Amino acid sequence: MKKLLIDCDPGIDDALALALAGGSPEIDLVGITTVGGNVSLELTTANALALREFYRLGDVPVTPGCAGALMGERVRAESVHGATGLGGVELPAPVKGVSDGHAVDFIIETLRANPGEITLAAVGPLTNIALAVRREPRIVEWARDFVIMGGSYTRGNHTPAAEFNIRADPEAASIVFRAGWTVTMVGLDVTLTAVVTEAILDRMRTLGRLADLVVPISQFYGMVTAEGGPAIHDAVAVAHVIDPTLLTCVPAVVDVETMGTYTAGMTVTDFRIDERTANASVATGLDVDRFWKLTLEAFERVGERIG
Amino acid sequence: MKKLLIDCDPGIDDALALALAGGSPEIDLVGITTVGGNVSLELTTANALALREFYRLGDVPVTPGCAGALMGERVRAESVHGATGLGGVELPAPVKGVSDGHAVDFIIETLRANPGEITLAAVGPLTNIALAVRREPRIVEWARDFVIMGGSYTRGNHTPAAEFNIRADPEAASIVFRAGWTVTMVGLDVTLTAVVTEAILDRMRTLGRLADLVVPISQFYGMVTAEGGPAIHDAVAVAHVIDPTLLTCVPAVVDVETMGTYTAGMTVTDFRIDERTANASVATGLDVDRFWKLTLEAFERVGERIG
Amino acid sequence: MKKLLIDCDPGIDDALALALAGGSPEIDLVGITTVGGNVSLELTTANALALREFYRLGDVPVTPGCAGALMGERVRAESVHGATGLGGVELPAPVKGVSDGHAVDFIIETLRANPGEITLAAVGPLTNIALAVRREPRIVEWARDFVIMGGSYTRGNHTPAAEFNIRADPEAASIVFRAGWTVTMVGLDVTLTAVVTEAILDRMRTLGRLADLVVPISQFYGMVTAEGGPAIHDAVAVAHVIDPTLLTCVPAVVDVETMGTYTAGMTVTDFRIDERTANASVATGLDVDRFWKLTLEAFERVGERIG
Amino acid sequence: MKKLLIDCDPGIDDALALALAGGSPEIDLVGITTVGGNVSLELTTANALALREFYRLGDVPVTPGCAGALMGERVRAESVHGATGLGGVELPAPVKGVSDGHAVDFIIETLRANPGEITLAAVGPLTNIALAVRREPRIVEWARDFVIMGGSYTRGNHTPAAEFNIRADPEAASIVFRAGWTVTMVGLDVTLTAVVTEAILDRMRTLGRLADLVVPISQFYGMVTAEGGPAIHDAVAVAHVIDPTLLTCVPAVVDVETMGTYTAGMTVTDFRIDERTANASVATGLDVDRFWKLTLEAFERVGERIG
Repeated sequence: MKKLLIDCDPGIDDALALALAGGSPEIDLVGITTVGGNVSLELTTANALALREFYRLGDVPVTPGCAGALMGERVRAESVHGATGLGGVELPAPVKGVSDGHAVDFIIETLRANPGEITLAAVGPLTNIALAVRREPRIVEWARDFVIMGGSYTRGNHTPAAEFNIRADPEAASIVFRAGWTVTMVGLDVTLTAVVTEAILDRMRTLGRLADLVVPISQFYGMVTAEGGPAIHDAVAVAHVIDPTLLTCVPAVVDVETMGTYTAGMTVTDFRIDERTANASVATGLDVDRFWKLTLEAFERVGERIG
Repeated sequence: MKKLLIDCDPGIDDALALALAGGSPEIDLVGITTVGGNVSLELTTANALALREFYRLGDVPVTPGCAGALMGERVRAESVHGATGLGGVELPAPVKGVSDGHAVDFIIETLRANPGEITLAAVGPLTNIALAVRREPRIVEWARDFVIMGGSYTRGNHTPAAEFNIRADPEAASIVFRAGWTVTMVGLDVTLTAVVTEAILDRMRTLGRLADLVVPISQFYGMVTAEGGPAIHDAVAVAHVIDPTLLTCVPAVVDVETMGTYTAGMTVTDFRIDERTANASVATGLDVDRFWKLTLEAFERVGERIG
Repeated sequence: MKKLLIDCDPGIDDALALALAGGSPEIDLVGITTVGGNVSLELTTANALALREFYRLGDVPVTPGCAGALMGERVRAESVHGATGLGGVELPAPVKGVSDGHAVDFIIETLRANPGEITLAAVGPLTNIALAVRREPRIVEWARDFVIMGGSYTRGNHTPAAEFNIRADPEAASIVFRAGWTVTMVGLDVTLTAVVTEAILDRMRTLGRLADLVVPISQFYGMVTAEGGPAIHDAVAVAHVIDPTLLTCVPAVVDVETMGTYTAGMTVTDFRIDERTANASVATGLDVDRFWKLTLEAFERVGERIG
Repeated sequence: MKKLLIDCDPGIDDALALALAGGSPEIDLVGITTVGGNVSLELTTANALALREFYRLGDVPVTPGCAGALMGERVRAESVHGATGLGGVELPAPVKGVSDGHAVDFIIETLRANPGEITLAAVGPLTNIALAVRREPRIVEWARDFVIMGGSYTRGNHTPAAEFNIRADPEAASIVFRAGWTVTMVGLDVTLTAVVTEAILDRMRTLGRLADLVVPISQFYGMVTAEGGPAIHDAVAVAHVIDPTLLTCVPAVVDVETMGTYTAGMTVTDFRIDERTANASVATGLDVDRFWKLTLEAFERVGERIG
């Protein structure tokens, strides 16, 4: 089993990523930390709490972190995820609350206590991770692996140049990419191929109570964009943790643009790295069929568990 | 016949673009202006003069323009085009020299004298065009059409984000794209598909004296890049003037990044333009077979002319 | 006599600077070129024409130039100079119009025809000068001297960091400061000491018809700012041409900020230039008494001339 | 007594500021946190430990914080402070070490435990403060006052536009100035008037063992600059905490430039704030005589204490 700590901002695709993690026997989910992103920190945290109980994830701690970007600007994606972040679906009110403390401290202390054992997956803006890196630079050595959903090497979605998670906190992303570890970057180039087709929806409809969540949020109108249909970006990053053979990854140097008038938040990706050391392993291909097989099987396990 | 004024920086693919123009009965070439770019202004001008006589283009005037970028930075592409700009090929020394005056004035006066009649094609850095626009803003109304080889909406070549011609003078490109006309942007997205294959080379080898130029420059090692293979970028822009059905073009808003640390010279292309007015018609597809048919037939006419 | 070509954007202090030039026997005014700045090009040109006849400057040519900044942004200073640029004063309608041609060409051709003889003074945004430098780089050798009113080495006026003329076209200023000549920079640091006191106003009131212009524009409310009282910035630059001993000037490297969020248009002035070559001679002190003596005597000559 | 927490990077003037705090009966020094700045974090921390014992500051905790700037760039000032930060003076090796934990946590927890009671003074780069603000935004309410040595509203010292502490971490400064509190900015405009004259040096020479430190570091050649002479910047910020009547302070909006090519780290200070809310109280004047009286009396108390 792989120990996994997820930093997220649920968010529709975050919710699906948590279902994938929660239904995968390969994964030992050691913590969920939240960050302001798709919607406000209050909502992403409330959604994480509700999902923990809806998915029956046990007593995995949920710890809230930073509300806004490092430099203070905030962008939100309510038009994509709905006003509350889950496309209008209302989950049962959770019974349990958040853990004491702050996500930044939780990340540092959890990695410190388990050096070399924990995979860190960040599928929202990178604010918490950046603060953790600056507060305790050794986490880059303590983490077993670090994977993000974010960025792209071709085009963006929030702007023509920038993907939402990176655009939401470019300075944090810049810190994280220059921290000294290898960032596995699962960007739009591959996540836009993880589309929820009608056939996938039909499979989801068989999931019992889980279907009441995953079907409508996958169909939420905000998820269908000019860039492609309902794509469940964050789940691809979690799938990579479960089965690293799903993605083709290529070493690259990724620089995050923080200055540009039209390009702030762009992950400028250089594959010609003869003279430079790669700081990223960039996903360039996804085995879509096997991704959905893995994901739907995990969903089925969650569906059975919750009835 | 279409009157065409070409602003260029020969340059291997500029040389091929001039051959295409010179061998096309649809084109009335009314002027060649030069700019520093692939190599220095001295060399681009010398090459233009040599090509005018080698191709027997008659007395079309060659007028030199700006040596460097608007803001003074200079990038060159000797590694792509060779030290003299023509991949090491030496053409016969030209007999005639440049016309009096400066390219900026030539462009303004030629367009002023023929309002609505002349297509302006710029296949190098946009320095001359930007100065002409600022010196005489009405040229955007006088030009029949304006087409450039430059930019991209996915990835660059000189940097991961920027194509060479735009990177070489981002401020000039910004001025040109905001001048009030519709820029037909023939970028790397399509020009990288105009690859010189072995079959094309075989056709070129039959061109007599012309083959002595076009074959070796097409094979010049600098032209083969990680982005794909010897591609004759500039010729695609000229081909579009001859036959506008070769390219699929889509309206878009193109903003040129001038500020970014990693993205200066990027043509940030937004296709979602409900609320904005397109300033560009961006090439998204090329009929490669018909492009080469057009090009090789033009080369054959030049080949016959020069023996 | 010194031949002087003034590029200006009248503008209250431009009007006073022209009176100073027009009343100085040391000055042979060879041309006035106009640029959009304090108010629109249409108004700065109309004001220049009206002033030429009001001051009886003879047949010195007035040639209009660029309407807006190089990169297209425009700032204006109507709040300082009034809606028409002359603080509400209406001059008699001029009889003669502008000369044929464009300011950029006039500047180039006038300097080309008189190498080493003409002092160029620019007291508005530097758009015309920048275009002239890029179109014909040799003007920096042909000019006898080049002096501007613009910039500062401490604080700005249009913004806390930037003086108006430089802020109005930072890219043009950057080009001009890097063109290879020594720019005599007469900035706010000294011009804010050239204040129109009550005693000066009393002297102005004795100037006959001229008083009808210079008194009310000097008192125009927009001229009184937090930075200091009505200061006649542009006239200090012209005074320096007439008598170079009025100003203390220090060699420096001046870089124009074009990128800053809060600092665009700042003239960053480095006096520690051991390892760099000065590109500017920066005014750090003004002999205010002698400045006013020179200026008022010139005004008196104009006043006598026009009755 | 005022509780004071000092975040510093000793550093010559930091050392003098600590002597001032340590000799002032008005001050209850509750903590010293260190940051990389003038010299490396290792050295600033070692110096803080050595100074605590040399000055007999008791068991005030010394807690190290961030080694480098938020975004990863580092500038140092060894040329000003000497290779070890104290102008070549060697203090006795300290016996006690640092406290457990990190400066960011210490700042947060100390302020949390004493809401409204503690004045926070930061006299180095603002990295620790910025991280604390982002990790726990409520510290801006918990702090009684926040004063920095840093910035200027006229000219810089590390660059023509930027003062060293702000230039060393512009993004941190930007975060701190926008955090919601009023920053008392004690900048170069006043600190450069706090010059160590020969008369002051004579007084310092009477301080017994303390003189062995304060005299040579005040005379260290790096402290004498073109901007003026050995000035003990950081001590002015501490003096303000002891006696707020020493400084004249004016409300202003301070924006920190993070983007400029030549201006990064500049504190752009706008005193015309009719429509904006001041985020800073900017020192514009210092009663130099009373400053030195206060400082020398404090030094004498330390001198008596340490023999």
